[in-house]
Amino acid sequence: MPPATPLLDTVKSPADVRRLAESQLKQLADEVRLETIDAVSQTGGHLGAGLGVVELTVALHYVYDTPRDILIWDVGHQAYPHKIVTGRRDRIRTLRQAGGLSGFTKRTESEYDPFGAAHASTSISAALGFCAARDQEGRDNKVVAVIGDGSMSAGMAYEAMNNACETTKQLTVILNDNDMSIAPPVGGMSAYLARMVSGGGYRSIRNLGKAVTKVFPRPLQDAARKAEEFARGMVTGGTFFEELGFYYVGPIDGHDMDALVHVLQNVREIDDRPVLVHVVTQKGKGYAPAENAADKYHGVVKFDVVTGKQAKPAQATAPQYTKVFAQELIKHAEIDPKIVAITAAMPSGTGLDLFGQRFPDRTFDVGIAEQHAVTFAAGLAADGMKPFSAIYSTFLQRGYDQVVHDVAIQKLPVRFAIDRAGLVGADGATHAGSFDIGFMGALPDMVVMAAADEAELAAMVATAVAIDDRPSAFRYPRGEGVGVEIPALANPLEIGKGRIVREGTAVAILSFGTRLAESLKAADMLAARGLSATVADARFAKPLDIDLILRLAREHEALITVEEGAMGGFGAFVLQELARHGALDRGLKVRTLTLPDLFQDQDKPEAMYAQAGLDAEGIVRGALSALGVDNASVAGRRA
Amino acid sequence: MPPATPLLDTVKSPADVRRLAESQLKQLADEVRLETIDAVSQTGGHLGAGLGVVELTVALHYVYDTPRDILIWDVGHQAYPHKIVTGRRDRIRTLRQAGGLSGFTKRTESEYDPFGAAHASTSISAALGFCAARDQEGRDNKVVAVIGDGSMSAGMAYEAMNNACETTKQLTVILNDNDMSIAPPVGGMSAYLARMVSGGGYRSIRNLGKAVTKVFPRPLQDAARKAEEFARGMVTGGTFFEELGFYYVGPIDGHDMDALVHVLQNVREIDDRPVLVHVVTQKGKGYAPAENAADKYHGVVKFDVVTGKQAKPAQATAPQYTKVFAQELIKHAEIDPKIVAITAAMPSGTGLDLFGQRFPDRTFDVGIAEQHAVTFAAGLAADGMKPFSAIYSTFLQRGYDQVVHDVAIQKLPVRFAIDRAGLVGADGATHAGSFDIGFMGALPDMVVMAAADEAELAAMVATAVAIDDRPSAFRYPRGEGVGVEIPALANPLEIGKGRIVREGTAVAILSFGTRLAESLKAADMLAARGLSATVADARFAKPLDIDLILRLAREHEALITVEEGAMGGFGAFVLQELARHGALDRGLKVRTLTLPDLFQDQDKPEAMYAQAGLDAEGIVRGALSALGVDNASVAGRRA
Repeated sequence: MPPATPLLDTVKSPADVRRLAESQLKQLADEVRLETIDAVSQTGGHLGAGLGVVELTVALHYVYDTPRDILIWDVGHQAYPHKIVTGRRDRIRTLRQAGGLSGFTKRTESEYDPFGAAHASTSISAALGFCAARDQEGRDNKVVAVIGDGSMSAGMAYEAMNNACETTKQLTVILNDNDMSIAPPVGGMSAYLARMVSGGGYRSIRNLGKAVTKVFPRPLQDAARKAEEFARGMVTGGTFFEELGFYYVGPIDGHDMDALVHVLQNVREIDDRPVLVHVVTQKGKGYAPAENAADKYHGVVKFDVVTGKQAKPAQATAPQYTKVFAQELIKHAEIDPKIVAITAAMPSGTGLDLFGQRFPDRTFDVGIAEQHAVTFAAGLAADGMKPFSAIYSTFLQRGYDQVVHDVAIQKLPVRFAIDRAGLVGADGATHAGSFDIGFMGALPDMVVMAAADEAELAAMVATAVAIDDRPSAFRYPRGEGVGVEIPALANPLEIGKGRIVREGTAVAILSFGTRLAESLKAADMLAARGLSATVADARFAKPLDIDLILRLAREHEALITVEEGAMGGFGAFVLQELARHGALDRGLKVRTLTLPDLFQDQDKPEAMYAQAGLDAEGIVRGALSALGVDNASVAGRRA
Repeated sequence: MPPATPLLDTVKSPADVRRLAESQLKQLADEVRLETIDAVSQTGGHLGAGLGVVELTVALHYVYDTPRDILIWDVGHQAYPHKIVTGRRDRIRTLRQAGGLSGFTKRTESEYDPFGAAHASTSISAALGFCAARDQEGRDNKVVAVIGDGSMSAGMAYEAMNNACETTKQLTVILNDNDMSIAPPVGGMSAYLARMVSGGGYRSIRNLGKAVTKVFPRPLQDAARKAEEFARGMVTGGTFFEELGFYYVGPIDGHDMDALVHVLQNVREIDDRPVLVHVVTQKGKGYAPAENAADKYHGVVKFDVVTGKQAKPAQATAPQYTKVFAQELIKHAEIDPKIVAITAAMPSGTGLDLFGQRFPDRTFDVGIAEQHAVTFAAGLAADGMKPFSAIYSTFLQRGYDQVVHDVAIQKLPVRFAIDRAGLVGADGATHAGSFDIGFMGALPDMVVMAAADEAELAAMVATAVAIDDRPSAFRYPRGEGVGVEIPALANPLEIGKGRIVREGTAVAILSFGTRLAESLKAADMLAARGLSATVADARFAKPLDIDLILRLAREHEALITVEEGAMGGFGAFVLQELARHGALDRGLKVRTLTLPDLFQDQDKPEAMYAQAGLDAEGIVRGALSALGVDNASVAGRRA
């Protein structure tokens, strides 16, 4: 039964929030919290972060004239309460589902989402863009970015802060300090924030008022004096931000509605310098099961609201790839003391929490800082260690120049464990790992592997351990393996050699990665139509197994490549090699099946694969089209 | 005539530096300076930065036990003096030439270059890798990173500083503050450093000593007290760095050898916390023409040592692409007030200095901060502006995730002006723009263009202005155009349409970018052999001109694609489309000519093109090989 939310029921848009009496805001926040909990209990998704910013969300929409005033949420996974009060409540129980609301902010979803996000630390840069556009055109709307303390470890947040004062005089950055992003925080900035918060708690609004009166321009001093009567809070420290040219206000209790409203009312009028408001919140606030959980219910599946008990995942038939990676790496690290592991704020997401339990001194969580993660690994490799950088495909984009410049050009043996390669389901386009095959495979000397199943992943970990004269990468998807046995300690693969998995005659299906299972299924379906298919597992996109590829081309009428990646990747490399060897000169019915040339919205993985044409049916279609069996392909082939 | 350098002549390696009396170091530095000036006067290259760190270089090698102690120079273009004292003096006049010394630090060149660099801001991350490896293995070598103040605007430097204290207790970061990287500095950090320096000048070593005594551990206090007798300097401010957990020492006069040596001797022994030593230097120091030049002779061609007069460049036959871009953008900006321009610390390199002179309020130099530059542009675009982000191809790698996540997924009309696309000559592999066609072309909705000549570039600027519903990119190389006329105001191109430049029959050459001129030359050479060649200019790598490509495939025996980019780019996209349309089914002698799958060392551009097979001769070879005229190709074609 949905919770009773009489006040929230009157809120169809932020204008309705602004019509409320200030004294009603706390109740509204309480109702938004209940609604958020109830919705996520049905959909699963990000919960803890949203619960932490319920009061802040209400206060922001109360004080600021959204959407005219620009409100940008960093990462966007804390924006469910924001969605609830910005006209999307009727769809809030479609979160992260096919055709439903995105789990992040999204421009195409609402005018209240002026800038979408899902990766961390972009909000200040984007906000400065809005500031510069406003200043350029002489408009007077306000701009607010809300960024978590975890996101402050990323360089791009610093780059933006470093430029804020030269770019504009009106910007408010709200630092949402819950002392936790996904994992516990790391780094000097985090320790600094903690010192400020612990330095004396929240002092009375009198002190806040005095400080505001001192630093704020004259017209604000009245408002500041008024604020004294209501809010708790203090102005302290903040030197770090002040050295970069910001006014610093805080720390403020982010669950004290009065304090929030009055501080925001003050800073809203500041137009002679960017302001940073340091708001301290509690992740999971107001929902005991979340407050008590170690991860504060950062990301949850469906759960029971009363008990907080999360639905059991469907019985897994095989281990997660992530876990297989971690376990294999641990096995090798037991033998080889030079193996170390690096994560950028994703210890549990990458499985390196397991590695860290076994080898705490050989595990480095550098925070949300992929650029540093890559070059740090390069430094380790340059000094003789065997670093494994475990980074999601989509986040590796953050460290691409470092992969090129610090690793590849120097031919340093950094090992990239590329998790979440390919489609990721509910997280949607922003988290899909679509481009790594191309952007890694284009680099000279890089070894690029993709695991067809969990035993192959184990072998690729062993291979990466063994490759000590150049960089290597192996990609594997989100989710479970296929249930094959994993040897006690896998042997390294021969570099640049694929394998034939099934011999056939008419058509060759050359798979790179976990689409191998669907390729085999496709072969069965083709066999049922009287078409004999060879299925091969390429294992390597770089170096390619030229002998295998030429043999497949020579011995079959058609060759279909299959990969869970964008154009310009594995299939493209195969074609370029085939062309170079003249293997296309006399005709080859070749098709490269890739992810489609569009950003796929969230959906169930199977539906996404079907849309991409990368399920067995899609592979069969590709093969039939190549062979000219399907009439639909005739027009194209006439060309 | 080379300068007289009696002391330097005795220095074959840093061990020889360490054998000198401390009192001789100043003379050695003077001689290194003379040698640097003389060498660069003959080779051209980076001069100002090196002259600023002559004393620092000598002091570092005197105090630290290189190469056992690790010394990492950020960017590496200031490392010519370092090369001179680390056994490379005999080759110093081969700098940046074919087969000669690199203009940057390079691991394969010397054991004294433990980590190469050429892009900014990597040194602290790399140094932390060396620290972690050392700590892991229980070694006691020291690690030093030298980073310029300009490089401190980049997020990755911050990411590394943020992690320094959690990673190690022994690291020295030397902040080489010359208040200038290439262009005048920007940002809050820069202003902060300036405030520290101007806050009272260098105070006496007595004050430095007292401060050191206070903050440093007991065993160092003696050394610190000794230092009082010799050096000048002070300890002040530094809160920013101290908040991140560093000891801060400075500012120190970076041309005062005594101060440098004694401060370094002190900090070398600190092993309970990372130290940041703030050293103030003067770019171009000790060479009047450099000191007096606006750019401090950042990068120079050959020059006369006595007068400082730089050799006149060979008479240009056509304008630089960079300038054409800027001039065209200015024309459009005169008409369209929504056009704004963004550079990441490269105003003159990208031509945006010209734009900035005309439209100072519409030009944003964000510092070395490509991540921010891209997302800032995305914010501008989201608020209705028409931002042009002008970034070198190689540096755009730094903002790749932002291009994917903030621009492409949101389909925001950010315009990427990709300068220095392709080979760059003397700057070598680290600055080559090799990968952008692939990594941009893989993105859904992105428009990717390459200019065949300067008139085409003008048209592509106009096209990018016109494309306001999605992101676009146009790439153009370093150097001069070909001398064609540029219209008063170019018209936009039809999106996704190439053009036939020359009609032929046997072979089609489809060029993407400025290799068009060589393609036409190749067509002449083929004609001389009786082979008639069609030459087409693709203009777009995305969307591809399918009609044109299919027609070329249909009407010719062979199709050769030509691009100045790596595998997985334009040619790969063409092949994937040909395959998809069945145009390879019945045979097509197709070859994709790309940059080779290796990192090409610096050389004259013509030699690099020849090595790549992208000059007319190489294109002819490709065509003959495809047609089977060249015996060398027969083996390949048998496959």
